[in-house]
Amino acid sequence: MSSPQPVLIGGQWRAARGSETFRASNPATREPLADLYPVSSWEDCDAALDAAQSAFEQLRELPGERLAEFLDSYAAGIEQRKAELVEVAHQETALPRAPRLADVELPRTTGQLRQAATAARDGSWRLAVVDAAAGLRTWFAPLGPVCVFGPNNFPFAFGSASGGDFAAAIAGGNPVIAKANSSHPGTTRLLAEIAAEAVAARGLPAATVQLLYRTGHADGERLVSDPRVGATGYTGSRSAGLKLKAAADAAGKPIYLELSSVNPVVILPGAIEERLDQLANEFTVSCLMGTGQFCTNPGLVVLLKGTASDRLVESVVERFRETPAGTLLSEGVERSLTAAVETLVRHGAELRTGDARRGAGFSHPNALLTVSGQRFLEQPEVMQTEAFGNASLWVIADNLDQARQILRHLEGNLTGCIYSHSAGDDDLAYDRLEPILRQRVGRLLNDKMPTGVAVSPAMNHGGPFPATGHPGFTAVGLPAAIRRFAMLHCYDNVRPHRLPPGLRDH
Amino acid sequence: MSSPQPVLIGGQWRAARGSETFRASNPATREPLADLYPVSSWEDCDAALDAAQSAFEQLRELPGERLAEFLDSYAAGIEQRKAELVEVAHQETALPRAPRLADVELPRTTGQLRQAATAARDGSWRLAVVDAAAGLRTWFAPLGPVCVFGPNNFPFAFGSASGGDFAAAIAGGNPVIAKANSSHPGTTRLLAEIAAEAVAARGLPAATVQLLYRTGHADGERLVSDPRVGATGYTGSRSAGLKLKAAADAAGKPIYLELSSVNPVVILPGAIEERLDQLANEFTVSCLMGTGQFCTNPGLVVLLKGTASDRLVESVVERFRETPAGTLLSEGVERSLTAAVETLVRHGAELRTGDARRGAGFSHPNALLTVSGQRFLEQPEVMQTEAFGNASLWVIADNLDQARQILRHLEGNLTGCIYSHSAGDDDLAYDRLEPILRQRVGRLLNDKMPTGVAVSPAMNHGGPFPATGHPGFTAVGLPAAIRRFAMLHCYDNVRPHRLPPGLRDH
Repeated sequence: MSSPQPVLIGGQWRAARGSETFRASNPATREPLADLYPVSSWEDCDAALDAAQSAFEQLRELPGERLAEFLDSYAAGIEQRKAELVEVAHQETALPRAPRLADVELPRTTGQLRQAATAARDGSWRLAVVDAAAGLRTWFAPLGPVCVFGPNNFPFAFGSASGGDFAAAIAGGNPVIAKANSSHPGTTRLLAEIAAEAVAARGLPAATVQLLYRTGHADGERLVSDPRVGATGYTGSRSAGLKLKAAADAAGKPIYLELSSVNPVVILPGAIEERLDQLANEFTVSCLMGTGQFCTNPGLVVLLKGTASDRLVESVVERFRETPAGTLLSEGVERSLTAAVETLVRHGAELRTGDARRGAGFSHPNALLTVSGQRFLEQPEVMQTEAFGNASLWVIADNLDQARQILRHLEGNLTGCIYSHSAGDDDLAYDRLEPILRQRVGRLLNDKMPTGVAVSPAMNHGGPFPATGHPGFTAVGLPAAIRRFAMLHCYDNVRPHRLPPGLRDH
Repeated sequence: MSSPQPVLIGGQWRAARGSETFRASNPATREPLADLYPVSSWEDCDAALDAAQSAFEQLRELPGERLAEFLDSYAAGIEQRKAELVEVAHQETALPRAPRLADVELPRTTGQLRQAATAARDGSWRLAVVDAAAGLRTWFAPLGPVCVFGPNNFPFAFGSASGGDFAAAIAGGNPVIAKANSSHPGTTRLLAEIAAEAVAARGLPAATVQLLYRTGHADGERLVSDPRVGATGYTGSRSAGLKLKAAADAAGKPIYLELSSVNPVVILPGAIEERLDQLANEFTVSCLMGTGQFCTNPGLVVLLKGTASDRLVESVVERFRETPAGTLLSEGVERSLTAAVETLVRHGAELRTGDARRGAGFSHPNALLTVSGQRFLEQPEVMQTEAFGNASLWVIADNLDQARQILRHLEGNLTGCIYSHSAGDDDLAYDRLEPILRQRVGRLLNDKMPTGVAVSPAMNHGGPFPATGHPGFTAVGLPAAIRRFAMLHCYDNVRPHRLPPGLRDH
């Protein structure tokens, strides 16, 4: 029996303290992979926190240029080991080597790291405000060690040691304690290795990047609420996230969560009359891409009753049947998706397609469900059960008033979209729906599926609870994402030579 | 028996639903005042929430100019009824009519309202980001009805229907449900009357400003976690605040709290050698002003052992004895302060002065306590018990290392200050203490007592938990304070004519 992989604490790869272990699986075969990973005890967390605290005291004093050099070096290191990374990630996630991993996600990841480097250099995230007459100067400053819990669906771009939260935390001068996602520990280990090399090469404190693979639930809650922690970034399931949130909230520790989202898409009749095939195709591609495993997957569609809507449903059903079901990321995803579809059916949704046999790997047939507006409104909460994966629930509203009621019952979501006739035939309906949808989503789209999340300063990848934990922050888009991991520092009557250089008079 | 004063719901002054009532007291005489106020049942909260939600749907669509006109009108209305306001507030708080209420706090309040009007007009709080090439536009937008729980110590400037939270919420396009502080309900009622007149005169939705006087604890928790609420601003005791925080957090509703702060002040030996009398005087004025009832009162002083420090203590003790004790705001403040001083003494602090007889009103003798650094470090939590009022604990550290340890054990505070020799004799000590203090406070001062909170865009009236609920927000200083009551709205591929005017291409 091989020994478990080492954790990275205080710059040292060493054996974890703790007796439990786990293995990831190859989703395409359902078989466990070879490497064994440790479940860390509190002793590891405690050591990582101590090391992170020391690292923070140095990091927060460094000029942004030093952080930027590390981020750039790390991005270059990832590119150098691209083939290896893509292979490991493919084994652990079954995501296609190309284009997905090699040509889309990896460049996105290095692009994010380099944007973070730019943000660290220019310091625009700090929003400095100087009132020289009053002797007051305020800006955002590093907050403290950041715990990052990455999701299963983006092993690179949202990875706990490489993704958006990681890049934002480091650019803001905070060390990261990465908790690997259990479905791709090997990918995270490899990324942490590359990061640790860049840390050493650039002379940053050794504990700038640390890695644990897994902890017990109680230790996870203790970690995010520890006095040595600055904040936590979490992307994952709602149930686990809410437990961490409760622990962090009770300790007054900021925690930024991305929990779940069904991403409502309203398709108005004029748009269907105008471009049915195009809509059916756009939706199918968006919903089944990556086997639907995106936080912005269009999981809920609202239509108005009528022959146009009927034809659109039929057209999508046909496409769902024709498209081979993809592989899911883990047995857990398969189980949750199966349970969610069953829940929807048990409460009255009709499974229009999705009862076919499964493949050899973790999978679920492409599932399209429909339900009447009335039925939805009788039980709006259960009808918003997130079916994470290749499934979508289409709600057929009797009329515009009922559609408005449906939108009024929506929980907070990352995105919301309205498709309408290009020449204005749906504009009256749009105007009655948009204000309701607008307050319930972070990003409002027109005539475009929500799955693309551009890395842009004008992006908002956030939204009202329970999509995230706070409606005023975004997880994607620099420099704004950095401000999650920052605190306001005001200097009042502080002697000029004692001010941080960026706040001095020029 | 007179009937209870009416509440303001949906633009109507009407009898509260609920059977309980209360009276405020005149702190100078300890006698109850004449007016009877109702404790609202949930029925009132529910009606206010419904009305606020409707008002919000209109408010959030209004141009900032309309909100600004209201804020300006309200400020003018306050000035017109200044004499009446000062008299009512004086009766309820015993704060001096002049200069405090008439010449300091009232102008500060109208100044804040007018700054909020300017911020509403210019929209700079929205931090618009446009990426035209990507079709993405993001800015901060109104969040929803805001509940404001105001504190006892600033009946105007932090009042729930007139203060900083109120002004920020309205400037951001959110209606306010004001919960009056029970120690000055009449002042709040009068302010809400003036506000309601300005609302009507300016044609804003009637429920833009609503007023309840008090609710049961359970209803308060239900209020801040209600789906119709956008966020809550709370300033008050830590125990009540933490209960509201737990309820709001569990519902995923933002809540901004200002809870408690001892505002550590480090006075280094060189500064004492240089200007002992000046320091003793500055401290005494700051600590006893307003009978010490400021959130930024210097409640904890750290000194280094030595004859200079001994002389400073003696000098302050003398001044404390010579200064007549002021009146406290309420029986509750008197009770808490007495209990806090007793707690500190019971745990080993020495009461150097403060055992004198009391006056006719709510009061406590000016209390100066000292404790050794070692004793402090044996029980740092209890030694940070906030003694809200005219009291301060002075910790005498054995040496610089022990002073560092003391700072390391500090909870989050609004402010932290270091006094040092003007020509640099204390600079080595400063450099070793400042990094520790910096991370534990929102505002760092040099050679200046923390009690003045300038209304400036560069102010940070915030700090790490438990001083506030989140270290990245300020309750004073526009436009930043508005962003507490905002959510990020992103527009992705939205047709140009459907964009808010402020996000369109110009």
